[in-house]
Amino acid sequence: MYELSELLLLIDVAYDGPSVTISALNTLSDASSFEMSFLQNKKYIDQLKETKAGAVFVTEDTAEFVPSTTIAVVVEDPYMALAYASKLFAPLLLDENAADAVVGEGSVIAEGANLAKGAVIGKNCTIMPGVYIGRGAIVGDNTIIHSNVSVYHECEVGSDCILHANSVIGSDGFGFATSKLGVHTKLYQNGNVIIEDDVELGAGVTVDRAVFGSTLIKEGVRMDNLIHIGHNCEIGEYSVLVAQSGVAGSTKLGRNVVVGGQSAFAGHLTIAPFTNFAARSGVTKDITESGKTFGGFPLMEQKQWLKLQVKIARLLKAK
Amino acid sequence: MYELSELLLLIDVAYDGPSVTISALNTLSDASSFEMSFLQNKKYIDQLKETKAGAVFVTEDTAEFVPSTTIAVVVEDPYMALAYASKLFAPLLLDENAADAVVGEGSVIAEGANLAKGAVIGKNCTIMPGVYIGRGAIVGDNTIIHSNVSVYHECEVGSDCILHANSVIGSDGFGFATSKLGVHTKLYQNGNVIIEDDVELGAGVTVDRAVFGSTLIKEGVRMDNLIHIGHNCEIGEYSVLVAQSGVAGSTKLGRNVVVGGQSAFAGHLTIAPFTNFAARSGVTKDITESGKTFGGFPLMEQKQWLKLQVKIARLLKAK
Amino acid sequence: MYELSELLLLIDVAYDGPSVTISALNTLSDASSFEMSFLQNKKYIDQLKETKAGAVFVTEDTAEFVPSTTIAVVVEDPYMALAYASKLFAPLLLDENAADAVVGEGSVIAEGANLAKGAVIGKNCTIMPGVYIGRGAIVGDNTIIHSNVSVYHECEVGSDCILHANSVIGSDGFGFATSKLGVHTKLYQNGNVIIEDDVELGAGVTVDRAVFGSTLIKEGVRMDNLIHIGHNCEIGEYSVLVAQSGVAGSTKLGRNVVVGGQSAFAGHLTIAPFTNFAARSGVTKDITESGKTFGGFPLMEQKQWLKLQVKIARLLKAK
Repeated sequence: MYELSELLLLIDVAYDGPSVTISALNTLSDASSFEMSFLQNKKYIDQLKETKAGAVFVTEDTAEFVPSTTIAVVVEDPYMALAYASKLFAPLLLDENAADAVVGEGSVIAEGANLAKGAVIGKNCTIMPGVYIGRGAIVGDNTIIHSNVSVYHECEVGSDCILHANSVIGSDGFGFATSKLGVHTKLYQNGNVIIEDDVELGAGVTVDRAVFGSTLIKEGVRMDNLIHIGHNCEIGEYSVLVAQSGVAGSTKLGRNVVVGGQSAFAGHLTIAPFTNFAARSGVTKDITESGKTFGGFPLMEQKQWLKLQVKIARLLKAK
Repeated sequence: MYELSELLLLIDVAYDGPSVTISALNTLSDASSFEMSFLQNKKYIDQLKETKAGAVFVTEDTAEFVPSTTIAVVVEDPYMALAYASKLFAPLLLDENAADAVVGEGSVIAEGANLAKGAVIGKNCTIMPGVYIGRGAIVGDNTIIHSNVSVYHECEVGSDCILHANSVIGSDGFGFATSKLGVHTKLYQNGNVIIEDDVELGAGVTVDRAVFGSTLIKEGVRMDNLIHIGHNCEIGEYSVLVAQSGVAGSTKLGRNVVVGGQSAFAGHLTIAPFTNFAARSGVTKDITESGKTFGGFPLMEQKQWLKLQVKIARLLKAK
Repeated sequence: MYELSELLLLIDVAYDGPSVTISALNTLSDASSFEMSFLQNKKYIDQLKETKAGAVFVTEDTAEFVPSTTIAVVVEDPYMALAYASKLFAPLLLDENAADAVVGEGSVIAEGANLAKGAVIGKNCTIMPGVYIGRGAIVGDNTIIHSNVSVYHECEVGSDCILHANSVIGSDGFGFATSKLGVHTKLYQNGNVIIEDDVELGAGVTVDRAVFGSTLIKEGVRMDNLIHIGHNCEIGEYSVLVAQSGVAGSTKLGRNVVVGGQSAFAGHLTIAPFTNFAARSGVTKDITESGKTFGGFPLMEQKQWLKLQVKIARLLKAK
């Protein structure tokens, strides 16, 4: 927690205005009066106008749209300022002062598993060798975590889950601010991952932690091997993702979405429940209507894609 | 091992018929008289007619095709019944009563490697830190297993193999029965993985264990990094798979098949020996003739694909 | 280090000529007079003519082009001979005679991390549980290595780096010589990986060590999750690679190249600085001009690709 003036001093932003206590960073729409946000892209100016954030980083030409209840901090590059500030709020990886890990009745922690201080494991779990459960991470009951899985600090895994070997829960989302010279400054990913109950993830799956808030894997999801889930994604209940698929940041799949192997989703999409995607689908737009099957890249209805391939093949005979 | 009547009681299937001892689940064509199978899809009705299984889960309308030597258990959803039954046959992850791991002469087990009880390591192996070798897993002679590899219970790795870091052998295949409401019930993967001699797997490769029987990586295979091999696949002798390729369940590659990077195979295919696939091939049909080179998605002969790309590019000039 | 005659004896090559001391294997263009090289492909005959290598494996018909200062060793299959010889120069995985790992002031080596003898960790690093740092590997200052990362022997990680969980640095590049019968002989990968300062790699990334020399990840690079980097690649300063991309061996990206998700590069390419690639780009040719944006497979300028998709979609309406 920082006084705004202190925070700005730490990141070398000249400032001589009112202060407020800042406990975290957040998006314009989710930030509370104790949180700080930013506006980089004027596309989101409406969110700025309605933000409840205690303070925001803005540019000179957007400062006028900051609500009266929010403190405007004018900087040249708000996203870069946010990146610098994010380091101040980064959660501890390890905390030697935390309590020893708590393990519920009936759980087996195999020799060679590593539970950080402050981790909590429920009842009747099996934690296999080489697993790492980070500081403050929570695992529910009856969950099996296979060898060499990494669960980062502050992430949550539900009950009746199975995480297959060498998967990673809570690695940092892919975020950084890039200067005009092309140098990157890390945007610390201060959120977490929440995996609800009855989820099974394959081997070598990576689920990134959220920049703010949580990346969410909802109840009953099934993922195959080597799948990538970006920060702040939400994978709907009972959705099924086949091997080597990838979902870019902030995309939300509804419930019972089925994703064929090696498919990919761009970021910030919303996919209707009960949508099916053939293998290798490349999804770059929202899907608003449920129950359809898509394929191809660019994406189209799968039956259209199949027809189109026939037409394309005919080109071979054309002069 | 269960009496059929006991097994059905445990999975809540009403039954009042003859019994038989069931020692495992298996496919219609591979099941012995001590094994139970199922028919979900009428496409396989001929396999039902010729099954040697001791018992089968069938629907009311397929019960009449069950051979007289096989007990028919009529259920609404045979695959779901199989899924429930599969849990009863799931092999133990850990067994504290098993004998201590056996390590052959000349083998180096680095500090920080974890050998489960009941594991067997041959002679002159090097098992690096963070490696986990599961219960009942067997490793041959002269094999090097790099750091943080996971070899699940009951899997077999041959002699003269090299498994690169963080690969996973024997994670569960991707199998579940889905109810009408979209809820998934795990089909326990009770088979294993067998890796024959002289195989080298890259880093971050995942090879799933079979649902029944074995996923088979045959002698001399070479795999690059981040490759996915589904359950019950068979990769032929000396086949070469380049990075980030994926092979879906039950697909069989013949010997000396060469697979370019990021290629993918649908499930249940058979690929002739000495077939070559260009990078990013998308294979959805059997290849019956040896010695050809394919590419594209949909797949075609690579020389056709190259020609087709020229034709497609010409569309740019069309009005 | 071997006398040439001794080396050839060990790999069963009949030889009765002058000798020289061979300390390593290398490419024709990089080999010094204490190193041995090879010519397999006549395409590189000019490199043979100018090599400074102490000795070279050549075929009968290329022997005449070997410079007088270099010893020609005539074999039927020079690449196969190289593969056999490479085993003689393979670096030790472990060395119990090496000094204990050295850890700089302020560094935290978590319980469950494994540092091989001969490893060197700088100041103020955090090495999380399950990490393996190999023999002779070097880590700079202020670097964070997350759980279950594997850093192979002799690799180097710079200062101010973050390596996310379960990534692999220095696994063997994908190299082998194949006999006429289709049997593969490993080409030992005797180089290393060098990661410069301020690099962040995502979870489940694999970076292969060089066959000779170094695979190079230059300052400021950012990689997302599940990315594959082949042996002898060079990733330019501040380049950004999005999840599930792959770069085949010896390809060089200039600085500030941006690579969209699931993209792939063939081997031996050179990509101009400040080039952008849309998601799923398939790159098979050099890019010589900076500042452009490409997409598609086959690759074209992204604006062309977008236009082309419109034209292709029109085929659906064609008779």
